[in-house]
Amino acid sequence: METLVVIKIGGNIIDDESKLSSFLQEFASIPGRKILVHGGGKLATRLAEQLGVEQQMIDGRRITDEHTLRIVTMVYAGFVNKNIVASLQSFGCNAIGLSGADGNVILAHKRNHPSIDFGFAGDIDQINVPLIKNWLDGGLTLVIAPITHDKKGQLLNTNADTIAQEIARAMSSEFEVNLIYSFEKKGVLLDATDESTVIADIRPSYYEQLKAEKKIFAGMIPKIDNAFVALKSGVRQVTIGKAEDLRELINHRTGTRITND
Amino acid sequence: METLVVIKIGGNIIDDESKLSSFLQEFASIPGRKILVHGGGKLATRLAEQLGVEQQMIDGRRITDEHTLRIVTMVYAGFVNKNIVASLQSFGCNAIGLSGADGNVILAHKRNHPSIDFGFAGDIDQINVPLIKNWLDGGLTLVIAPITHDKKGQLLNTNADTIAQEIARAMSSEFEVNLIYSFEKKGVLLDATDESTVIADIRPSYYEQLKAEKKIFAGMIPKIDNAFVALKSGVRQVTIGKAEDLRELINHRTGTRITND
Repeated sequence: METLVVIKIGGNIIDDESKLSSFLQEFASIPGRKILVHGGGKLATRLAEQLGVEQQMIDGRRITDEHTLRIVTMVYAGFVNKNIVASLQSFGCNAIGLSGADGNVILAHKRNHPSIDFGFAGDIDQINVPLIKNWLDGGLTLVIAPITHDKKGQLLNTNADTIAQEIARAMSSEFEVNLIYSFEKKGVLLDATDESTVIADIRPSYYEQLKAEKKIFAGMIPKIDNAFVALKSGVRQVTIGKAEDLRELINHRTGTRITND
Repeated sequence: METLVVIKIGGNIIDDESKLSSFLQEFASIPGRKILVHGGGKLATRLAEQLGVEQQMIDGRRITDEHTLRIVTMVYAGFVNKNIVASLQSFGCNAIGLSGADGNVILAHKRNHPSIDFGFAGDIDQINVPLIKNWLDGGLTLVIAPITHDKKGQLLNTNADTIAQEIARAMSSEFEVNLIYSFEKKGVLLDATDESTVIADIRPSYYEQLKAEKKIFAGMIPKIDNAFVALKSGVRQVTIGKAEDLRELINHRTGTRITND
């Protein structure tokens, strides 16, 4: 089986033009099949402020009313996505930028929550594996914005971490998938304030021990739980680490590696 | 040779949600290979106003400073493009939305004008014929936003009429191309104020006669000149007509047909 690298880049990299450019240059130089999933950073929040559209967050998720959907569609699928693609093209990487509506790549439905109305927030139903495989096999690199659709004409705002995970899981039927969450920290830290305390490897038994000893800080738990879900669905490896260390993350020379065995 | 229909939709259709939806339903039902090129209507101008970005037009072309480029990228390649794609998907048409940067589909360069600085306006150098052919042959319908790139990392604002024409010309090496400009009028009119005066067919000799007799109104001349350029480059037929009459335009039952013979 061929290898596929699925990389999620966190928001704060997108807000820093020069860091983003270095990251994309590194990304472009990764050989073989690759997919980049991005968020929108603070740009959407800033545009909402400028346009006087109030933003409401619940559990770290944006409540997506009609005006907010318009803003995130413009920022994520328009400005951020197309600038990333143009930049990758300049580094010799033949990228195409996609929302989930394009080619029906990510089919979702409007979130149905018993007590909170998330508005136009989408939960993923299906990844278009054959089309993605076809594009990757044809030498294209995919850049995916966190906007999906319901195939009834409605665009939906969808969490980029979840998109990366669902794509990694679905593509595992075709490729050996390496899922990388790159963000501002060097990895999962034993001490959240000390970057030298990166945990190099997390396996299920050690993870249980870390949780029992409360040595892992709360914010990382859903990320690691999701990593184990991905691993159970066939993803070969999940790595969490600093975006600036992309090359070392891929070669397992830094960051936190999460594996099942 | 297979047939390819390249359709440009004018701005005012995009501003009218229900007209746009009917148009897209018609478009989705066209059998065979098809490409839709769209502009952004008044949305970009409205967003610029809301954000306090002053818009300057010269010869009907927007002067694209950095702020304006950001706005048109968001509106054209983000909001408009993704909503069109989601709508086409709902009508069973497997569309993908693209800027010229995606897959390096439209390579352009920053306009170099002796006296006017158009800013980030792009003039087209090359259309990626093999990739477009590959996508069309695979059953995908392309929806193209009027944003191109220079392969040096710079996005560029490019006239949608010109994009439609250049795509039609370039794809003529692979397909029998039918280029349709759909807008708010029923076609080329003998009397601009009377929709019943549509000229059904324009051939070069008749066009010279119409111009000599000043029976053709000034705004149409560059459109028709461009149509003849397209025909000379191998495009089979150019049709100009009302967006609401799309099906009849394709079947040559309405609008103005421009042909070389």
